[in-house]
Amino acid sequence: MRLILLAGALGLIGAMLGTRLAIRVLVRRGYGQHVRDDGPQTHLKKAGTPTMGGVAIIGAVLMAYLLAHLVLWTPPTASGVLLLGLFVGLGFVGFLDDWIKISRARSLGLNSRAKLILQGLIAIGFAWACFQFPDGRGISPGSQYVSFLRDIQWLHLGPWLGMAWIIFIIAAFSNGVNLSDGLDGLATGLTTMVFVAYALVNFWQHSQWCSRLSTAGPMCYEVRDPNDLAAVSLALAGATFGFLWWNASPAKIFMGDSGSLALGGAVAGLAVLTRTELLAVILGGMFVLITLSVVLQVGYFKLTGGKRLFKMAPLHHHFEMKGWAEQTVVVRFWIICGIFVAAGLGLFYAEWVAGTDLIG
Amino acid sequence: MRLILLAGALGLIGAMLGTRLAIRVLVRRGYGQHVRDDGPQTHLKKAGTPTMGGVAIIGAVLMAYLLAHLVLWTPPTASGVLLLGLFVGLGFVGFLDDWIKISRARSLGLNSRAKLILQGLIAIGFAWACFQFPDGRGISPGSQYVSFLRDIQWLHLGPWLGMAWIIFIIAAFSNGVNLSDGLDGLATGLTTMVFVAYALVNFWQHSQWCSRLSTAGPMCYEVRDPNDLAAVSLALAGATFGFLWWNASPAKIFMGDSGSLALGGAVAGLAVLTRTELLAVILGGMFVLITLSVVLQVGYFKLTGGKRLFKMAPLHHHFEMKGWAEQTVVVRFWIICGIFVAAGLGLFYAEWVAGTDLIG
Repeated sequence: MRLILLAGALGLIGAMLGTRLAIRVLVRRGYGQHVRDDGPQTHLKKAGTPTMGGVAIIGAVLMAYLLAHLVLWTPPTASGVLLLGLFVGLGFVGFLDDWIKISRARSLGLNSRAKLILQGLIAIGFAWACFQFPDGRGISPGSQYVSFLRDIQWLHLGPWLGMAWIIFIIAAFSNGVNLSDGLDGLATGLTTMVFVAYALVNFWQHSQWCSRLSTAGPMCYEVRDPNDLAAVSLALAGATFGFLWWNASPAKIFMGDSGSLALGGAVAGLAVLTRTELLAVILGGMFVLITLSVVLQVGYFKLTGGKRLFKMAPLHHHFEMKGWAEQTVVVRFWIICGIFVAAGLGLFYAEWVAGTDLIG
Repeated sequence: MRLILLAGALGLIGAMLGTRLAIRVLVRRGYGQHVRDDGPQTHLKKAGTPTMGGVAIIGAVLMAYLLAHLVLWTPPTASGVLLLGLFVGLGFVGFLDDWIKISRARSLGLNSRAKLILQGLIAIGFAWACFQFPDGRGISPGSQYVSFLRDIQWLHLGPWLGMAWIIFIIAAFSNGVNLSDGLDGLATGLTTMVFVAYALVNFWQHSQWCSRLSTAGPMCYEVRDPNDLAAVSLALAGATFGFLWWNASPAKIFMGDSGSLALGGAVAGLAVLTRTELLAVILGGMFVLITLSVVLQVGYFKLTGGKRLFKMAPLHHHFEMKGWAEQTVVVRFWIICGIFVAAGLGLFYAEWVAGTDLIG
């Protein structure tokens, strides 16, 4: 408990101070100062805004995890380190992309093939590692089942399909968060809520853990390291919440790909490691909707030979085009996300109360 | 559990639809259409915005409570009804104020003495009723102790001082929320967070309740009707969250005094009925800071014969005058509120985990 709260508090403070520092450094170095004074007033502001704020988030989470473990002198766990590895790895790919965009002002960022290969290698490494490191009871960080509120016993995939499934989850969520990062504070607020939800899921899994004699009842959770994962989740929630201080409208800094890829990876990693992959589709329902809007738009466009389903994709731009103010879209998407999170947590807890595995 | 979730969902849906309706009706009747076309662009928008949105929040909460109890066929409880009485009563005073302001376009609203007397009568009624209605174990809705994380045993006040204390809590929070209602979405977002926190407090009190044999341990909570109070809390959280859909920047409607007095009363009522009055000072810390800013500003002004401590009070206008964008102030105040709520909930749970009454 102390580990979880300490990690959350450090993540929050670290991101608030770290982002402030990042803004200063980036502005001083002249990144994000290409202001066009012939643009509209609103764009004038946005054009000068530095990006790569994700680096501050990543730094804050790592600092929070290490410092909390040092202060309380608890060893890190396999699941915690794996999750952070995925988070930092994807963040690094995003950082390369951001960096190339900035240094070659007009470039499109990292070569898209190189980017895909790097992301793929990291996802494969994570998926492979998920099946290693069994604890004393033989529980690995990830499982070879498809999971909803826990592993679904009749959906055993085996090692190869299991890895492919995990890689798919990572690709889906890192792209989903990436796509949602288009309005001031949108992706930041959405991920904060999802990480708070995962802190609660992990906390509950820890309090009803199969690996503890006193709680090993019929509804206990077969997971590895739920307490440590709760600490990482709350560190992530704290860091994104702290980043929101600077990222809320009008944004003083953007997270960039270094932020959105890393955070998307963290959501996917939490889904895999807590064995709640299909629950993540509900908790992160807003990312799913935003991704679907792009898929549908592109598919419909191709099928009809040029017609559009939405005024613009991703979904948030559709509502902007409909005349909603940017902040209206952001807050309303936050509200929908809050509903998704409440529904997901309600379902997760209701299954435990009902006392029977809903899926079997 | 089903009662809590159903009430929350109904509150949310009710407020989203109800507020939409309220906007239409108010706009059609011409309330809030006194647009001055010589004002600045930002003010032009604000001047046309209807107020009295609190009526939609109150309606949604009442509907949610009644419908949830009807659907699940559970009787209402003394605590739930008392809380709703305080909420509706103060809302009615606010409504009179809003109504008079609107119908006599240039008036200052309800006569301030009449307003104080009405508020006082409602608060006295609530405080008196808190000590009535003992349940089977002799537990009344409110207690005659000052409470922090539970009743503080060496701070017994007796009936008269106890009533005065409850009245003070009501006056403090209804004014606090009232003062915080000055920027689009500010009071709405803050109260949503505090009500979610109280839903969790009530939920935990219910799961560790002294009035149930299986949970009547040394750290159980001596409260009346925690499950029903959790339902009201989540209905309030749902309703304010749903109202935020329309109230977020740029606001399509304001809550008015009918909203802020009612919601402040609900916060105070929850503090009294859950016996966590001093904890409410932490959970609602943002209201405390905003109120303090006004008290300090006025006091300093009088003491120094005309000097000001803040550029403007309440606190949010100070930061606006410092050049922060309205939305920046709102989101940052939400973030600080989130930190207060996290700290308060952490403390509440830590005391239970520690297993010893922190105060004695």
